[in-house]
Amino acid sequence: MRYELYYWPSIQGRGEFVRLALEEGGANYLDVARLSGRGKGIPALMRFLESNTVERPPFAPPFLKAGELVIGQTANILSYLGPRLGLVPKAEASRLWAHQLQLTVTDFLVQIHDTHHPIAGSLYYREQKAEARRSAKHFIRDRLPKFLDYFETVLERNSSGRGFMVGRSLSYVDLSMFQLIAGLRYAFPRAMAKVERDISGLIGLHDKVIARPRIAAYLASERRIPFNQNGIFRHYPELEKP
Amino acid sequence: MRYELYYWPSIQGRGEFVRLALEEGGANYLDVARLSGRGKGIPALMRFLESNTVERPPFAPPFLKAGELVIGQTANILSYLGPRLGLVPKAEASRLWAHQLQLTVTDFLVQIHDTHHPIAGSLYYREQKAEARRSAKHFIRDRLPKFLDYFETVLERNSSGRGFMVGRSLSYVDLSMFQLIAGLRYAFPRAMAKVERDISGLIGLHDKVIARPRIAAYLASERRIPFNQNGIFRHYPELEKP
Repeated sequence: MRYELYYWPSIQGRGEFVRLALEEGGANYLDVARLSGRGKGIPALMRFLESNTVERPPFAPPFLKAGELVIGQTANILSYLGPRLGLVPKAEASRLWAHQLQLTVTDFLVQIHDTHHPIAGSLYYREQKAEARRSAKHFIRDRLPKFLDYFETVLERNSSGRGFMVGRSLSYVDLSMFQLIAGLRYAFPRAMAKVERDISGLIGLHDKVIARPRIAAYLASERRIPFNQNGIFRHYPELEKP
Repeated sequence: MRYELYYWPSIQGRGEFVRLALEEGGANYLDVARLSGRGKGIPALMRFLESNTVERPPFAPPFLKAGELVIGQTANILSYLGPRLGLVPKAEASRLWAHQLQLTVTDFLVQIHDTHHPIAGSLYYREQKAEARRSAKHFIRDRLPKFLDYFETVLERNSSGRGFMVGRSLSYVDLSMFQLIAGLRYAFPRAMAKVERDISGLIGLHDKVIARPRIAAYLASERRIPFNQNGIFRHYPELEKP
């Protein structure tokens, strides 16, 4: 099976959680909107969103074409790919748990994004800068430690041990933890410097993920888009000022 | 199987999407935090959130106890219950699609909630009233019609017909559409009055859901908590002023 990922070509965004799974799983895939030529690029992506004939249109990218299936929503895509790429345990209880954790990542990402866009996604950052400062202050004080402490607790309590989030080996949830830590370090370096001593398990997991050969090769390649000021994780130093 | 639902006892909130599925599915269930006595009430709910020994703690309510399983995240719970209560088609493609739609409902609910809490969930509404007015203006103009038009399109394009969101019969997604329309009418009556002519399919679906005997009985019972100013859908008239 050759998968086709459809996501914005210039940001990591939500698509990155899928890219990491495809890379670690050694999947054969095309990152369609980053390619040029007939049936590729952004027009190929927009065709699904704007067509009048697609019976089951996605609301927004990312979506994954897998044969005849077109699957939308990041956590739904990962839930589909997990068993096919060996990135989730086989038991139903563990799959439900992995998906539950991924949906909690989804919730966290909305709150991370909304620190720089608290009023409306359709406005520029500069049009909601004052509100963003206020929002980020509460985020850094309350939500950032709450979510990270939760994930740290989950990691600690995994009785299968070995330092993974679910079960005995690496899952897509571990890849998402890496991406969260990397993104938060980019966006909120000062806040993360303070909080990292309390989440040593997650930091260890981050380090373990970047050391995996396929992930290391991916991160060193041009396929990994650098963090930038258009994604979910953005570095505005003024949002970290006390 | 007797299910145990754990959710805040005084609001509809996210738990309501699960309650509606349990009711329509004729499930044997306890709404634990609404009961009193040993092992019931809010303390029973908090035990899962604050225990130091639960290996797989939910981040937040709602969560569902099904035998030994404790399943968190609303859409994950519905994905689990769907096939067991006959509220989703059997084919994998249709289940993925139903779940994708439910996750888009989840996204919409965050944006609905954030109209009255754009800065921080930990602050009172009165502490972010000016920002809420600004946020609600953009929500009503852009996001409300975008999400509703999307769901209307999905309903129209369902080639199995008969006016359901997925396949040939009622699914948990249809129940969620009812709840969205009912909640939005409560929160934004003026905005909804304007938009309803463009979503006649969804309004028809809403009416079809409330006419179902089990849902009608539920809505008339004390098990249905009225909309109020502590839930996701809140009616602040000032947020609808042009």
